[in-house]
This record gives sequence, structure tokens and C-alpha cells, in this order.
Amino acid sequence: MKIAIAQLNPTIGDIFGNSNLILEAAKKANVEGANLLLTPELSLIGYPPRDLLINPSFIVAVGAQLQQLAQDLPPELAVVVGTVIPNADGVKLGGKSLFNSAVLLQNGVVQQVFNKRLLPTYDVFDEDRYFEPGENSNYFSVGELKIGVTICEDLWNNEEFWGKRSYAGDPISDLAKLGVDLVVNLSASPYSVGKREVRSAMLQHSVIRSGIPIVYANQVGGNDDIIFDGSSFAVNQKGDLIQVLAAFETDFAVLEYDAVKQDLVGSDRQNAPRIDDAQPLSFDPVDADAEIWAALVLGVRDYVRKCGFSKVVLGLSGGIDSALVATIASCAIGPENVLGVLMPSPYSSDHSVNDALELAKNLGIAIEMLPIGDLMKTYDRTLADLFANTTFGIAEENIQSRIRGNLLMAISNKFGHLLLSTGNKSEMSVGYCTLYGDMNGGLAVISDVPKTRVYSLCRWLNAGGYVGDVPSSLDEIIPVNIINKAPSAELKPGQVDQDSLPDYDVLDDILLRLIEHHESVAQIMVAGHDEAVVKRVVKLVRQSEFKRRQAAPGLKISDRAFGTGWRMPIAKSSS
Amino acid sequence: MKIAIAQLNPTIGDIFGNSNLILEAAKKANVEGANLLLTPELSLIGYPPRDLLINPSFIVAVGAQLQQLAQDLPPELAVVVGTVIPNADGVKLGGKSLFNSAVLLQNGVVQQVFNKRLLPTYDVFDEDRYFEPGENSNYFSVGELKIGVTICEDLWNNEEFWGKRSYAGDPISDLAKLGVDLVVNLSASPYSVGKREVRSAMLQHSVIRSGIPIVYANQVGGNDDIIFDGSSFAVNQKGDLIQVLAAFETDFAVLEYDAVKQDLVGSDRQNAPRIDDAQPLSFDPVDADAEIWAALVLGVRDYVRKCGFSKVVLGLSGGIDSALVATIASCAIGPENVLGVLMPSPYSSDHSVNDALELAKNLGIAIEMLPIGDLMKTYDRTLADLFANTTFGIAEENIQSRIRGNLLMAISNKFGHLLLSTGNKSEMSVGYCTLYGDMNGGLAVISDVPKTRVYSLCRWLNAGGYVGDVPSSLDEIIPVNIINKAPSAELKPGQVDQDSLPDYDVLDDILLRLIEHHESVAQIMVAGHDEAVVKRVVKLVRQSEFKRRQAAPGLKISDRAFGTGWRMPIAKSSS
Repeated sequence: MKIAIAQLNPTIGDIFGNSNLILEAAKKANVEGANLLLTPELSLIGYPPRDLLINPSFIVAVGAQLQQLAQDLPPELAVVVGTVIPNADGVKLGGKSLFNSAVLLQNGVVQQVFNKRLLPTYDVFDEDRYFEPGENSNYFSVGELKIGVTICEDLWNNEEFWGKRSYAGDPISDLAKLGVDLVVNLSASPYSVGKREVRSAMLQHSVIRSGIPIVYANQVGGNDDIIFDGSSFAVNQKGDLIQVLAAFETDFAVLEYDAVKQDLVGSDRQNAPRIDDAQPLSFDPVDADAEIWAALVLGVRDYVRKCGFSKVVLGLSGGIDSALVATIASCAIGPENVLGVLMPSPYSSDHSVNDALELAKNLGIAIEMLPIGDLMKTYDRTLADLFANTTFGIAEENIQSRIRGNLLMAISNKFGHLLLSTGNKSEMSVGYCTLYGDMNGGLAVISDVPKTRVYSLCRWLNAGGYVGDVPSSLDEIIPVNIINKAPSAELKPGQVDQDSLPDYDVLDDILLRLIEHHESVAQIMVAGHDEAVVKRVVKLVRQSEFKRRQAAPGLKISDRAFGTGWRMPIAKSSS
Repeated sequence: MKIAIAQLNPTIGDIFGNSNLILEAAKKANVEGANLLLTPELSLIGYPPRDLLINPSFIVAVGAQLQQLAQDLPPELAVVVGTVIPNADGVKLGGKSLFNSAVLLQNGVVQQVFNKRLLPTYDVFDEDRYFEPGENSNYFSVGELKIGVTICEDLWNNEEFWGKRSYAGDPISDLAKLGVDLVVNLSASPYSVGKREVRSAMLQHSVIRSGIPIVYANQVGGNDDIIFDGSSFAVNQKGDLIQVLAAFETDFAVLEYDAVKQDLVGSDRQNAPRIDDAQPLSFDPVDADAEIWAALVLGVRDYVRKCGFSKVVLGLSGGIDSALVATIASCAIGPENVLGVLMPSPYSSDHSVNDALELAKNLGIAIEMLPIGDLMKTYDRTLADLFANTTFGIAEENIQSRIRGNLLMAISNKFGHLLLSTGNKSEMSVGYCTLYGDMNGGLAVISDVPKTRVYSLCRWLNAGGYVGDVPSSLDEIIPVNIINKAPSAELKPGQVDQDSLPDYDVLDDILLRLIEHHESVAQIMVAGHDEAVVKRVVKLVRQSEFKRRQAAPGLKISDRAFGTGWRMPIAKSSS
């Protein structure tokens, strides 16, 4: 039996467009002789639909579109689609109104419905807000073959693998008891660094434990702050990866369940990873820079496209953050669609302008130069009486940043370019950024990327990571001076970041422990950090909550990003 | 037996300060001869603590503080405190790590623990993110008396009252089966218009059904966007309200359980609502304006205080929105702590400046005047080449708004005043506001107040609702011209809001149906609205999501505010 995986990139709520993606994949599967087509979790709706699910007319439209899709699909092909199904009976007993379901479509109708049992409610997930958990696991049959159906989190309660249990139920065990031959999984599993390896290691472990092969179909694409990497795969009964789909791209693959061997075997399609039972596949060795780069490029490309923009604008300060964002944007939507704006002030150094110009030339993006000295003077005049007898400080520094923010938004409003903001995670953590200034933008491209990783990404790009259309004469895409000089906001003469902050190596390690590992001050000190520094960082992080609350959506690459999964009170004390 | 209710206003995370509030109430209860003291839900921590609960060292500190509090309390007094309790055993079986609990403290130790069973996950609530539901309902005994314990949502699953079941379990029924004499409830029930009446009607209904009297202790105070109105109360066996605590203020009351009558009776304390079995108490007749006014005043006062500010600044345009916000702020923290900034442009009408000055004089607040004409010209010059051959439009309008936003933030940064933003819900819904301009601020005071309600509140203030320290000679606190003139953003000559938007009566009715009632276009048309208008409004609401995502926290007064309870994707389609 042949099983096709459609690794799709749906747009949230675009049930007509998403249906077409499923139809196209089904036609392809049909041509390739597949018997079964798998699509990702909520493939009809896109994940996560969030409060669109509260709208009753949307739910009605989804139901109608599902029926239409069932009719439009090739009748013989069994297609498993992700959608929501009303919990008509359960709601009377106090249950939630919807299930997160996988439906088997064949011969023009819905043949069977499978409901997600384990509903995540951590980090970015709010599934209990909308969904009733399914009570049982179940399978469908294709000929003699029993195929157990699971949805995303259903496979994540592997107690042995994690060393802890996260839910009472365990769908894999239950399916094993039902004697299924194969488990399929519809997923929308967000990207974070190294997540792909975690998924495959966990499911290989599960397969070895249960003896049941797994086919895992993941969503791909960026949806607001969340990036889905795809990286769908299949694991045979021995626990080997026998098929791996592309990361950060839509993809399609057909593999086979061999009824004699009673096991999955990979495909031999062109460009597919090599299949060899003797030498099991694995994902490429982890290269975090390459992975993060690909994630951010996809995140920018999809946000721009799905929001209906075609061009972006950003401020080029000559610093490393804006250099990285400009490079990501150039790769994501083409340098011809990127406008860099230089807005030097009297405090800007010559090298800032030169470095920014060199970067723009390397990338081949258009630039504009809008000096802000006159605006600074006019603000000074306007505020002269009110600010008399006060000294230059944060207020004046922020005015500069907000002048730039206003100019960039004027360009965005005038020409319809999406403004990208360029702040990194280290800055966002400690509030080393100006609300309504450099934080302006529709998308915060690197707000989950620590400063040390910004450097690492730029070095990786210069070492050959960047494969854009650049002159072969170019040694480095990012001018080396941008990487080598001391980072500075240049909001007063001679300023550098380390006037206000610890070295970024130190800061980023403290932030990692504090934010991602939830360590206490005492625990962080044990790692060798100075008490006063740790306490200052903790205080800065706490005091910056009001800025993060008003930040643009930021592309998530870590397990704890400042976004929909970060829910911290502003008015609080932590005595 | 005497039962005291402490209607407390905790600060989120301030476990030491909150303990002191509980201790003070306990001393008072002791002096008044009470046997039992009730406090609100999570009274030790403040509600909602949100992701503070993910921090392991915070949970350890909460546990230690609870033990300390138990020791510090008067030993004889039984005190029920709200806190979190680790789910030590359950977590091994896959349960969440915490319970939302009520603990009975007496004689220096934790005597008993009661876990919340019904965990809300709608609107602003995320309780499944942190808590395991309690399995059973239980009671504690004071002498012969069996007192059943419930926490907030535990009492909200009254199927008869709502006409629908919201959870499988029903703690009141279970407690009735256990033969309790009395039910107590620890709540943190957010305010929305008319919520107080809903709560009492529901619990009166529950009491009449079960025959068990209820004492309901609610949190009071503002915590970020959520306002808790207090309005604690008690219902006797007949279903009469026999005690009502203050709305929007901390309060304390002692009532009695009469062992002979086997029922609750109210107190006879000074200033308490009159107690008379023949004439049951009720809340004051609903006066939505008075109620909303009090809610917003409390919300501003607590946000300012809990964030550590003492003064606020806001832009005074001469329009009705800023007039209302200035008046709320004056009442909340005193006019001497409010600075109004007039920033007229060449497009500002004379009456705008005069109206703003008159308002400031009426309120007794300080003003500053910062004309923005020079800044507008300097932006024009700076952008002249880039904007050559384009026509005046949204970009230029927004520049003005962002100049004002920059000046206000400069004042905020320079003098440490909290900036209040003044946009109303109608504007926020359709995006008739400038991101990084008039949307700037730490708190969006009226962002959940529709424009029609803004008018109604101002008329109510002028009709005597405002009771601040104003000259008796003053007829109206809000200058009548501010109420009577056509609303205008004054961003181009002769502009009025209705150039771009339907009449506010029409717009607000459409928005109410769309946003709060989840009606479809077809349903809204049935109510008499024009199809083209409805579709345009729907489109504007959808397109403005990116602005709302970056808005300041806004005080919530409706059942569907744009805040922590509004979770809508930005990049989406709704084909």
C-alpha cells in the first residue's frame, strides 16, 4: 500500500485556499498511485486558528467546506484531513463545543472521525480554550491494514523518553492494544532549535517500544510568530527513519507499507533522501545557525505574503542587528523588495553610514538616506521651555529613536511596505530598546534571537551560509567591520552597549538560565555569575514587561519566546 | 457563629504585602469576635498571577509564606486563604503541577486544603495552563457546622440558570449531598457591566435550588487590564441578599450564621446596607454609567499605584475621548497629579484649544502647550525628496499623531509620568487610530468603552455624576462644546470622523453584534443594518488586528475586550 504525505503550508482561516492545497496534493497522490494521503493537523483551517474558532459562522463555513472537499477529492483515495468537528452531544453535558479532529474522507463523504485526546495548554498552546479531548483512540482500515490515527500532542506523552508523564492517557499504548499495524500522526508542531531531532528521537523511541511504525505529517510555514518547520518523517518497525521530508519548505512524498514485511519502506523518488535499510537515514547534523537562518527566512516570507505585502522597509543603522535582518529579508522576498533607510544623527559615526552603505551594496537592496539632525533640533526647540534645567538623558535618546520610527512608519504608510523591526532577544529581555522607536514594525524578525546568536549567524553567513545572488567577487556578505566593532545604539557621543549592560556572553547566559530554564538567582550564581549582575538583569527583565507587551509579533525560535506563549503580569511585585 | 469577609485588593506576586493585608483583616475579625475569616481566590498571590506560576522559586516562596502566615495569624481564628498548592502525587500521573486552592489556616498550621474543580479557560482565563482540577468537593467543620468550600468558577455551572451546562461537575450539588450547612466561595471574578447583578441572581437561584446559604468573597482592584469590582455578598436560605459589600473598594464585613435558625443573618455594623428579612437587600438599580465610571477610576488608580507611578500625562486634543480620560485620571489620582498636554497643529481649530483649556481649568490640572507646526514642517522637509509627487494622505496624517506621541513619551521619560492613551473601543475596533501615535501609552483607559458610551459617560458626569473637588459655580465639568461638536481627529482641514466611518450609533451597534455577540454579516443585516456598511466594518475590524496586537493594556469593562482575552491571528484570511 502506498501512503502519501502532503507537507502543506496553509493560511489561517483560508478554508477555500487550504482546500485547494489538499486537492492538489490528492491529485498528485492519485497520479503516483497512492492509496492514502495524509495532511497536517487542522489542514483545512491552518494552525493555530485561535479565536476564529469562537465565531459560529466560521465553524459552519468550515463544516460546509469539508463536505465540498470530500466531494471534490478523487473518490478512491483515502484522505485524512485535519479540521474541527462540533461536539454536538458532549456540549450538553458541559463539554467544550469542538473537537480537534482528523477526518477520513473517501468516496465523497466523511467516513470516520478521530478526535485529538491530548490537548496542550503550555507555551503558545491554548487548546483547552476551544476543544474537548477525545475519549478514545481508534483506527481505520485499508484492506487488511489497521491504521491508528493520532494528532500531534497525542504522541508526546512518552514517559520513558521524557522521564516524566505529561498526561494521564497514552494513545500509542491504546492503539497497540487495538492491534494496529501502523500509526499515522497529523501535526502542527512549532519549530524551535533542535526540535526536529527531538521529534524523531522521541518517535523512534516510541516505535521501538511499541513495535508499530509511524508516519508523521507536519505542517510547514510561518503563522504570525510561530514557524512550523515541516520535517515530516516516517519510522519503520526497527525504529529507523526511512523517509524524511524537507525542512522549512512544502514537500510531498510517497512511501510504502509492505504487507509481506509488515513494515514501512521509503520511496525511491528523485531528490528524496537515500533509502537503505542497512544505513538508516538521519536528519543532517545539527547546524543551529543554518537551521535558525532557514526558519527566520521562512517566517519573514510567510508573514509578508500572508499579510498581503510584497515589499518591506527597515532602518539600517550600520549595526549588526539591522544588517542581519536586511540579509534575512533579502533572502526571503528578494533584495529588489527590500528598502533600507539610513537615518544618521550627529551622534552617528562615519563608519555607521559607510558600513550600512556597504551592506546595502552587498545585498543589492535600495536605500534612502534621511538625516535626522534637523528633526532632533526641532524637538529640542519644541521642548526647550519644558525641559529647561534638565540634563540630556533617556528622554533625549528615545526622541532620536522615535524620530526614526516615525520616518520608517511614514514610508510604510506612504508606499505600503511592511516595516520590519530589528531588535534582538537580549535587548528585548532587558528593555534595551525604545518603545514606539526602534521597536516599531509589523514583525520583529530577530526578537527571539540572542545577541550572541546574531553574531554567530552573521559569521556563518560570511563563511558561506548565504547563497543569495551576490557578486562572486564578494568575500563577505556582512561587512566585517559591522561584526568587529563594539555594538552601540549611538544615541549619545561615544556610547556603547556595554556602558549599560554586561558583556553579551554573560548577559545571554544569564538570560538563558532565567527565561528558558526558569533558574533562580541562586542557581544562576552557582553557574559562576556575579550576584549583583544577576540581580540587576532579573530586575531589568521584570521592569521591561510593559515594553514587551506592546512589541510586534516576533518570530519564535526558542522554547520560551516573548510572544503568545509569554504571559506575564505588568503591575506586579516579586517580594 | 460570626463570619468575616475580607474584600482585599492584593498586588500580583507581592506575597509579603498580601500576607499583611490578610493579617490586618484577621486582627479586625478577631476584635469583632469572628470565628471564621474568608478572603478572595488566590488572596496570598493576587489574581491572575499568570506565568509567575511557571517560576519554581516563586512557588517555593509562596509555600514558605503560607506557613509563615499560618503562624502569624490569631491562633483561634479559622482563616480561609487562597493560594496554589503543588500537585505532588498527581504530577507523576501526568497531572498539572499545581492546584488553585483554598486552605484553612488555624492554630498556626494548614488544617485543610480544598482544590478548585471547575477551571475556566475562556476569555481572559487560562487556568488549565497551570492547574489540575480538584476531584472532589469537601467541607470543614466549625463546631457542629459543616462549611462547604468552593472557589470562583465552582459556582458558575448552574445549568438551570444559564440554560446550558458548562462543565461536567457541579460542586454545589456535590456539597448538598455531603449535607453541608453553608457554602463559602473565594472568588476573583472580573468586572463587566452588570456582572454584579448576574452573580447575585445566579447564586440566589442556586441557593433556592439547594437550600444552602452562600457567602461569596470576591477580590477587588485593578490588575493590568482586568478590574475586580468586589461586591462580595451573602445569600440566606430563602435566597435573599442579606449582606452586600462595597463595589470597587476594599471592604470588610461580619455576618452571622444563626445555629437556631440554621441560616445566615446580616450584620448591623455602621454604614452597612440595611438588614431586614422582610425587605431583602438588592444591589442599587443598574446605572451603567456610574458603574463604568467607578470601574475605570479604580482601574487607573491601581495600575498607576501598582506600577509604582504617582503622576500621569496625557494629550488633550479638545475632543471628548481625552476629556473623559483626563476626568477619570483626575478623580483616580487627584488633579494635582495629572498633566494635560495641548499639541495644536495648523489643522487644529481654535475651539479645540479653547475647549481643552476650559476642561483643564474645570478639573484643576496642569497643562503644557507644545505646538507641532514646526515639527510637521521639518518632517515634510526631511521626507520631501522621497515623497515628491505623492499626495497628502494617511502617511502625513499619521506623522502628526506620531509627533504628538513622541512629545508625550519624551515628557513621560523625562519626568517619570505614566502616559495614558485615550482611544475608545469603536476606534480600536476599526483601526481609526495611529499605532505609535495616539495609541502610545502605558494604559489605554477607555479602549473597551464604545464611543456612544463615551458620550453617555460625559453627559452623566455633567448631570452630577462627577463629585470631585470642583468650584460650585461650575455647571458642567466637561465643557458642553466638547460634547456637542462633531468628533474629528483634526489631521487635515475640515476633517470629521464621519468622513471615514458610519455614524457612531450605527457603528457601535454593528460592533456590539459582531464582537460581543459573534453575529454573522447576515444576522447583523437582519437587525436593520446596510449590507455594504456591515461588510466594510467587518473588513476594517479584521484589518486592524496588527494595531490591536501592539496596543497598551486596556481596562476591560465588557465581556469581550481587546486584551488578554482576545486572541486573534494577524496573518489570516476568512474566505
